[in-house]
Amino acid sequence: MNETRTELASLGEFGLINRIQKQFSAQNLTSVIGIGDDAAVIDAGADALLVTTDMLLEGPHFDLSYVPLKHLGYKAVAVNVSDIAAMNAKPEQITIGLAISNRFSVEAIDELYSGIKAACDDYGVDLVGGDTTSSAAGLVISITAIGRAPKDKVVLRSTAKANDIICVTGDLGSAYLGLQVLEREKQVFLTNPEMQPDLEKYEYMVGRQLKPSARMDVVHELAEKNIVPTSMIDVSDGLASELFHISRASGVGIKIFEDKVPIDSMAFETAIEFKLDPITCALNGGEDYELLFTIKPSDFEKLKNHPDIHFIGHTHNDANQNVMVTKQETIVPLKAQGWRHF
Amino acid sequence: MNETRTELASLGEFGLINRIQKQFSAQNLTSVIGIGDDAAVIDAGADALLVTTDMLLEGPHFDLSYVPLKHLGYKAVAVNVSDIAAMNAKPEQITIGLAISNRFSVEAIDELYSGIKAACDDYGVDLVGGDTTSSAAGLVISITAIGRAPKDKVVLRSTAKANDIICVTGDLGSAYLGLQVLEREKQVFLTNPEMQPDLEKYEYMVGRQLKPSARMDVVHELAEKNIVPTSMIDVSDGLASELFHISRASGVGIKIFEDKVPIDSMAFETAIEFKLDPITCALNGGEDYELLFTIKPSDFEKLKNHPDIHFIGHTHNDANQNVMVTKQETIVPLKAQGWRHF
Repeated sequence: MNETRTELASLGEFGLINRIQKQFSAQNLTSVIGIGDDAAVIDAGADALLVTTDMLLEGPHFDLSYVPLKHLGYKAVAVNVSDIAAMNAKPEQITIGLAISNRFSVEAIDELYSGIKAACDDYGVDLVGGDTTSSAAGLVISITAIGRAPKDKVVLRSTAKANDIICVTGDLGSAYLGLQVLEREKQVFLTNPEMQPDLEKYEYMVGRQLKPSARMDVVHELAEKNIVPTSMIDVSDGLASELFHISRASGVGIKIFEDKVPIDSMAFETAIEFKLDPITCALNGGEDYELLFTIKPSDFEKLKNHPDIHFIGHTHNDANQNVMVTKQETIVPLKAQGWRHF
Repeated sequence: MNETRTELASLGEFGLINRIQKQFSAQNLTSVIGIGDDAAVIDAGADALLVTTDMLLEGPHFDLSYVPLKHLGYKAVAVNVSDIAAMNAKPEQITIGLAISNRFSVEAIDELYSGIKAACDDYGVDLVGGDTTSSAAGLVISITAIGRAPKDKVVLRSTAKANDIICVTGDLGSAYLGLQVLEREKQVFLTNPEMQPDLEKYEYMVGRQLKPSARMDVVHELAEKNIVPTSMIDVSDGLASELFHISRASGVGIKIFEDKVPIDSMAFETAIEFKLDPITCALNGGEDYELLFTIKPSDFEKLKNHPDIHFIGHTHNDANQNVMVTKQETIVPLKAQGWRHF
């Protein structure tokens, strides 16, 4: 028996992934890309199939005291669709592994599936299989999504070149602030159950947290404009963490400008209210499910007037120099806090 | 809000699956077969891709007080490979969703992955992706397997014809008896920790429970002999339950003969020791992961001398008559107890 005990916390999530990845090598020619991108790439003739898995657990990932089951079902699908979008592909199928305890009624499970169905309809995805089982503890949802794209249109995170333009869709930090609002209201409710939560002011942020959208609209628009990004990733752990993934995988440096990072005005105000730095929320907040991608400078003309795509900086040759130019025009190193799960 | 509360137990696992299935219809032409077989079938040009998901939870599915993590990793892969085998296909990729708490060390996770890797090597499968997250409660493993077969070789459970011969591989009931032995030894240990368990006599059964094999060998042999079964399913919930699946899906009746159902001699003795009826263990025990399939009578000659394939009966026209002829030559209706998860 091995007597050594190494704590998981000492490795962290990405350390653990690297450790696993090193032990496995591909045996099948059809396994084109394995662990390490938003989705795996599998050969399917003229097309590539993209496969991604996400697991959501009650407790670490959601709190049923304020997350409606219908929204949870929607979100569980949307976050997987977002991984397929990040490969520049179209989602087509999902399978669902679901563990539920008998504290849930059939009606509750119907609510969950009505959200799953709404997302399937929105994204044109078919539920093709799954496994439903009992859980002694909390609810667990594990979704695998399968997408498809012509082989030459699949976009990895490892193919950015120096001097590409860094683009991000939508706005950042709102989902994180939505979570702060929900957690605060929960505490208020626990202290005084008579108190009615006033969420109206925070509606946008709460919506971003509870029912995120996968940016398939952007994937379709890029295709219409005949643009294939040079690299792409979705913003699930926070902008900074995703920028580091592109930097490491592509071997390029990152330079972004604070004043270009899109932050919703209500989110900005709410950050101040919570005594949080708005840019930190945008850089490290996570769960925005926007798309972060790089384009060749020659594609800029085609996108420059897009109302929902923001040009936040550019790549350069030195992969060890990942920096942000602040509003005060000082250069600070980017820090990826990401999320420590352990 | 819906005021009605219907208990999950009143629906059962298959009732819940039917309820979900009715709400979803395919939107993509590439979704060839959805919910309701061992795996979904997805169009991939000349080939079909098969996709299946299984979720294993600490508590309902395994007890870490007697299941070594390495065996658990192996089994989690093997049960998914078995679903691919049941479609007459070859497994090629898996993704793993894993939820772990910090009570597990890095060394423990290495043990789990060493079992996963051993199974990947045995079955020629590539680990291409996954999601690792924290769990407040027990260990959860959700595996999705992707397999491949030429389109005309995929075998469903819905295509048996009347007068086909019913075949089953290996032997049945041993995995269930292995579980009884392990549970008994656990109780003995809890009562008297000084007592050393004597498992030698039960080694085969315990091995069947802890480290089942997917019968890819049989899939390859059938291909070599140019036999495509008329229907196929793997024995995960028990022979009777699987026979009912074939009966319902194919619209055929089942007639099997008790004296043809393969039961290992030590398993037979152990059943008696546990005051269990050996044939009940074989019919309802589950977790054998053998293949149950039907063949055209004209294929019988090619298989009749196979040492590990047993011909246990035949199908007929009346889908409401699913019976077993006992050793005493009386005809009794088959009963599928399966497993009630809720």
